Amino acid sequence: MKKNVLIIGAGGVAQVVAHKCAQNNDVLGDLHIASRTKSKCDAIIESVHEKKALKQPGVFEAHALDALDIEATKALIEKTGVQIVINVGTAFLNMSVLRACMDTGVAYIDTAIHEEPGKICETPPWYANYEWKHADECKEKGITAILGAGFDPGVVNAYARLAKDEYLDKVTEIDIVDINAGSHGKYFATNFDPEINFREFTGVVYSWQKGQWQTNQMFEIGKEYDLPVVGKRKAYLCGHDEVHSLAKNMEGADVRFWMGFGDHYINVFTVLKNIGLLSEKPVKTAEGLEVVPLKVVKACLPDPASLAPNYEGKTCIGDFVKGIKDGKEHEVFIYNVADHKEAYEEVGSQGISYTAGVPAVAAAMMVANGEWDVKQMANVEELPPKPFLETLGRIGLSTWIRENGQERALFA
Amino acid sequence: MKKNVLIIGAGGVAQVVAHKCAQNNDVLGDLHIASRTKSKCDAIIESVHEKKALKQPGVFEAHALDALDIEATKALIEKTGVQIVINVGTAFLNMSVLRACMDTGVAYIDTAIHEEPGKICETPPWYANYEWKHADECKEKGITAILGAGFDPGVVNAYARLAKDEYLDKVTEIDIVDINAGSHGKYFATNFDPEINFREFTGVVYSWQKGQWQTNQMFEIGKEYDLPVVGKRKAYLCGHDEVHSLAKNMEGADVRFWMGFGDHYINVFTVLKNIGLLSEKPVKTAEGLEVVPLKVVKACLPDPASLAPNYEGKTCIGDFVKGIKDGKEHEVFIYNVADHKEAYEEVGSQGISYTAGVPAVAAAMMVANGEWDVKQMANVEELPPKPFLETLGRIGLSTWIRENGQERALFA
Repeated sequence: MKKNVLIIGAGGVAQVVAHKCAQNNDVLGDLHIASRTKSKCDAIIESVHEKKALKQPGVFEAHALDALDIEATKALIEKTGVQIVINVGTAFLNMSVLRACMDTGVAYIDTAIHEEPGKICETPPWYANYEWKHADECKEKGITAILGAGFDPGVVNAYARLAKDEYLDKVTEIDIVDINAGSHGKYFATNFDPEINFREFTGVVYSWQKGQWQTNQMFEIGKEYDLPVVGKRKAYLCGHDEVHSLAKNMEGADVRFWMGFGDHYINVFTVLKNIGLLSEKPVKTAEGLEVVPLKVVKACLPDPASLAPNYEGKTCIGDFVKGIKDGKEHEVFIYNVADHKEAYEEVGSQGISYTAGVPAVAAAMMVANGEWDVKQMANVEELPPKPFLETLGRIGLSTWIRENGQERALFA
Repeated sequence: MKKNVLIIGAGGVAQVVAHKCAQNNDVLGDLHIASRTKSKCDAIIESVHEKKALKQPGVFEAHALDALDIEATKALIEKTGVQIVINVGTAFLNMSVLRACMDTGVAYIDTAIHEEPGKICETPPWYANYEWKHADECKEKGITAILGAGFDPGVVNAYARLAKDEYLDKVTEIDIVDINAGSHGKYFATNFDPEINFREFTGVVYSWQKGQWQTNQMFEIGKEYDLPVVGKRKAYLCGHDEVHSLAKNMEGADVRFWMGFGDHYINVFTVLKNIGLLSEKPVKTAEGLEVVPLKVVKACLPDPASLAPNYEGKTCIGDFVKGIKDGKEHEVFIYNVADHKEAYEEVGSQGISYTAGVPAVAAAMMVANGEWDVKQMANVEELPPKPFLETLGRIGLSTWIRENGQERALFA
């Protein structure tokens, strides 16, 4: 059954979600997009029409919305008659938008964990700090709420589940590796909201090892990976949303997240952080103006969406999953390779936005067709991975595996 | 005759000026200090009393003043009955304070060229853009206004004049070199107001060569100098106030200014500049707040005054002056070496503030004793250098010369 969709947000990921929803509006139904700045939504819809992305004639409307305003969000959900909300606005909105969905009885999908503006890299358990507190209410009311349905978290959770279901008898280690081997040609830019990007890396690094949280400093532990297509790349241990949910849902396995960084990124990050410019806490200028340094850094940096036209190169994101198979140690690497230029040509966004946005639409399609309409809150690894990865393969993100030194496509 | 002094400003340089005025209140008279934040003035006066710096019993009062408010400044000058104003507030105040002095008939001394908040590294002629426009009025009214009476500009101007008067028949090249070989132990800090510090280096670099302005980029032209005490140090061609006045007052000579920078400073500066964080032009945050990035960087960096307690090492600032003597090429290096720790022990400030503040007090003493009370506007190189350098030698900054490979004290 077709389900109408409301997209919240109007950044690079929302652009991808809008295009992919349009391309699949035979499965989804009427489309709506809302953000604080309506003109951004208008521009996205215009680009959808320019690319003739709507698979069949259909509604696609823009709305102005402050999604922190729960009542306004509920009113928009009711006015538009949507059954699914895809929240790809800033991570500060999650709790408000989820509340609005629970109150109106519609499905909720997001791509990143909730954050409070004043708190950076909170102490785990992250999902349990916010989202999971509403799990019981979702179950009672029969609300489908799919958490972290981007690429990482999201697809990488499905990869872990797939490895457990199909390739290993027992999982002992999950190492998620996220490498962007692309180049945007700017002096410095982040690939998604700088505020969220930097906040990920300014606090303590948490990983789940030997049944407990281990803490490290950012850039303390680095490792060179040799990956398909992108080759040898240095990645660093970071905290990340999915480390928490996988630690719980893949009991007995160590869970680590590794992000690739070049020396230039690390240098810029280190300078900004050490000076205090990545702080979420307000400082007062000599003139008495209170201002959050991180928000000023964000205002100075290129809009991630603006990087797309000149972005070149590829991303490789996947899971090294290690464990026991037929009594012997075994490891698989399940991954995707995406291309910045191809993403831009298809939907007008760069590859990082593409890999984050397409899975949210696949999840919406799974909710619409019932396969993931589970009437409760779920992280992606709790849901059947194969139909999701099959859908992703069809709509733009193929899944590959490297096993016993051989690489082959699983869902393409 | 004793003359009462009003110090404007309450930063690191003002701290030095306050202590040195106190130490010489037999030549100067009643002392007053004013800034926007009166508590900073109170703290400075407290430190003066702690060090028992007043040479003889005398007045030292604190006042709250927005020195951009000309009428308020005039009222304070009249109420306190001062005859000399030492302006060591931000360089944005010069024109307002000078106006107040001209209207009330008192002497004016500053240590840096006027700046307008919205304009960075204006096109030369710098002094002619602002200060020198008031030269005729000063002359008519008999106002003594001594411009740039810090170390550089200031003492280095006197060094150039001394070289011309005493060591060369004709001056062909003046290379002012400013090396801070000290260490404050912080990740990053500027030695004086970060806003003024960075503004010096974000624009085009101007030097005076072959009778015209030459333009370069910052850090484009570097040179290793081998200097007394501090040894081999890399310095870079920069624009600086005194290049302009010396170009005019030392006709026929090339004038260049070289500032020492370590690789770490250059890296931090480059990152901040390339990202746009050193811009004086407001940006708008996603929340709609208009803010000048440079002012936020300033708010994040350590207060220069706070560096003093742990500052170690020495500065070396001087002039390489080249020309013709008895028909042959000849060069002298006239310089001072200052020590951060000694400065802190004496006046509670680091060496950079010390070298900037002591000369302004020497200038005030010269105005008080009549030797520099010239009843007109003047840059330091237009005034007799020897009594000024003698005074400086007595009150804390000795002058040395390296000539024919030998170093010796001139005024110590």
